[in-house]
Amino acid sequence: MRFFPEFGDDFLRLLESLEGKRIAVLGHLRPDADCLGSQVALCRLLMERGIEAVCVNFHPVPRALRLMVGDTPFFLADDFDAEGWTAVTVDCADIIRIGDYLREKFPHIYANIDHHISNPAYAERNLIDPTAAATGEVLAGLMFDLGLPVDVVSAQAMYVAIATDTGMFRYESITPRVFEIAAELLRRGASPSLTASWLFENEPFGKIELLRLFLESVQKSCDGRLCYGVLPLGCFSETGTTKEDAEGFVDYTRDVAGVDIGLVLEEYEPGKTKGSFRANSSGLRVDLLAIELGGGGHATAAGFNQPLSLKEFLPKVEAAVAEHLKQYDAGALLPVATST
Amino acid sequence: MRFFPEFGDDFLRLLESLEGKRIAVLGHLRPDADCLGSQVALCRLLMERGIEAVCVNFHPVPRALRLMVGDTPFFLADDFDAEGWTAVTVDCADIIRIGDYLREKFPHIYANIDHHISNPAYAERNLIDPTAAATGEVLAGLMFDLGLPVDVVSAQAMYVAIATDTGMFRYESITPRVFEIAAELLRRGASPSLTASWLFENEPFGKIELLRLFLESVQKSCDGRLCYGVLPLGCFSETGTTKEDAEGFVDYTRDVAGVDIGLVLEEYEPGKTKGSFRANSSGLRVDLLAIELGGGGHATAAGFNQPLSLKEFLPKVEAAVAEHLKQYDAGALLPVATST
Ligand SMILES: [Mn+2]
Ligand SMILES: [Mn+2]
Repeated sequence: MRFFPEFGDDFLRLLESLEGKRIAVLGHLRPDADCLGSQVALCRLLMERGIEAVCVNFHPVPRALRLMVGDTPFFLADDFDAEGWTAVTVDCADIIRIGDYLREKFPHIYANIDHHISNPAYAERNLIDPTAAATGEVLAGLMFDLGLPVDVVSAQAMYVAIATDTGMFRYESITPRVFEIAAELLRRGASPSLTASWLFENEPFGKIELLRLFLESVQKSCDGRLCYGVLPLGCFSETGTTKEDAEGFVDYTRDVAGVDIGLVLEEYEPGKTKGSFRANSSGLRVDLLAIELGGGGHATAAGFNQPLSLKEFLPKVEAAVAEHLKQYDAGALLPVATST
Repeated sequence: MRFFPEFGDDFLRLLESLEGKRIAVLGHLRPDADCLGSQVALCRLLMERGIEAVCVNFHPVPRALRLMVGDTPFFLADDFDAEGWTAVTVDCADIIRIGDYLREKFPHIYANIDHHISNPAYAERNLIDPTAAATGEVLAGLMFDLGLPVDVVSAQAMYVAIATDTGMFRYESITPRVFEIAAELLRRGASPSLTASWLFENEPFGKIELLRLFLESVQKSCDGRLCYGVLPLGCFSETGTTKEDAEGFVDYTRDVAGVDIGLVLEEYEPGKTKGSFRANSSGLRVDLLAIELGGGGHATAAGFNQPLSLKEFLPKVEAAVAEHLKQYDAGALLPVATST
């Protein structure tokens, strides 16, 4: 049985076509674990085949994921001379996701490996499977299908990629294949408990205070169907934390009984507010709601920026959500297939 | 390939021996999802084979898990006349775990299906696999091995059992078999996103305030290696919550960087304090620490009760943890195999 029978030949031909080239494996802005894990796995596979390869990102590897990268060569865009290197992107739904700086350095993208349904196949060779829950799932499945070597660093990296892109095995995107690939990654040395310790057991103490401040602000609105909380101006410096530490706070609002949509609002500069929606089901289409507010995203997770203070913006967002829920109740929102 | 080749014959003979009997599938006190999910799956399997079967528990099914039980017949011990019924326990590490009341009703336990390494095989027939992460894993694996029918209610129940007993796929107890069985359960209709919505997306609003109160109390001790928080007297009634809502709060203390042991303390009555430890690795043996304080548990999760006020008890527990960490540093604690 093969995990990705329709892509095996393409992937093998792609690998063959990379021989003799110098490969820069590019990830997206503010790289997440699926992006970095996929970079790690592809880069190591190429190196193992005798191909010169490095990973290049505009933003650095976040603290929690440094151990995942291991000894894989990672470069910041700033420190990298692109002359003579061939670009392959992973987990980049759109070419703009690598950032303007890397786009200038790599005007031509040779290959594009991804799982986003919206990916417009912007490269010379494209390998996109929107049925996969993570780019790490595509790479791991293909490497197993083709009997390619997967070392313990790659196995662990692809496991972390899959675990995070499925919200620790919670999202609608999960299929039996996700679990079968996870099983095989464990056989190659991946560790769920090590993954949990990297992702969750290394929190700065200030995050306790940040969360307390946030929870103090949480309120319900729209007949209890919207629940929102606020990250007050200066809360990060006050608590010695960074905005990374507030990731996932929106789940506290979304998880309240009876709530359809959770929301976190942050006035990150005086007169500038950003927001992040989470919905309990893809039918709620918060991507459409975010587009209306000048942003975008996925059906269950979307965000926006507004040139307004929190106080000015709050009544507007409440009105927009109320109107959106009315449309949802009337069955006027179309469901979509999603992947993150 | 079989998941539990060494138990297939035993399980089949057990099922055959139950024919013509009336079977009460018993779970443990304060049943968790592994207990209830295993009861659901075994009861439905027996009914499907034409065997009269019901589930019986001393405590009721918690709110979050009622949908999991579906139309499976569940009885409270109080409402159940045991005369003429044969008892089979699931997920009960010890016979005392069914509670005194059910022990009197069922002085003889016919069969015992479990995954706890400490299980003393107290029944006439015992089927115990300590290599399994959950009793639901044992049952699902055996049902698949033997080609027995698994309906969607059973598949979902065993999935929830495995997901919760592995801490949402985070614990050291996870093996490739766990993921392979999860894959097969998905094929039979189990849903990870439905599981998440049952377990996490139905929180009372008061839990936000309860968590805020708790976080306000969180402190570090023992050179930053112990982190503890307090549930103040009256906090549940004040916030309209129950002690179930504080489950998992200990993770906030355990997850702080540099912390070895997390601890939640609750003065549940004036002059009576209980506590719950969580360790970052099984080598920390918080079960031994809890035994010293009059309690017990697992190597990474253990608890105790003390007839002291919080104020009286706090210096004692800090001293005990400091001494325990000294022993840990000296390599004087033995590692153990664990299952929950
Ligand atoms: Mn992804
Ligand atoms: Mn169990």
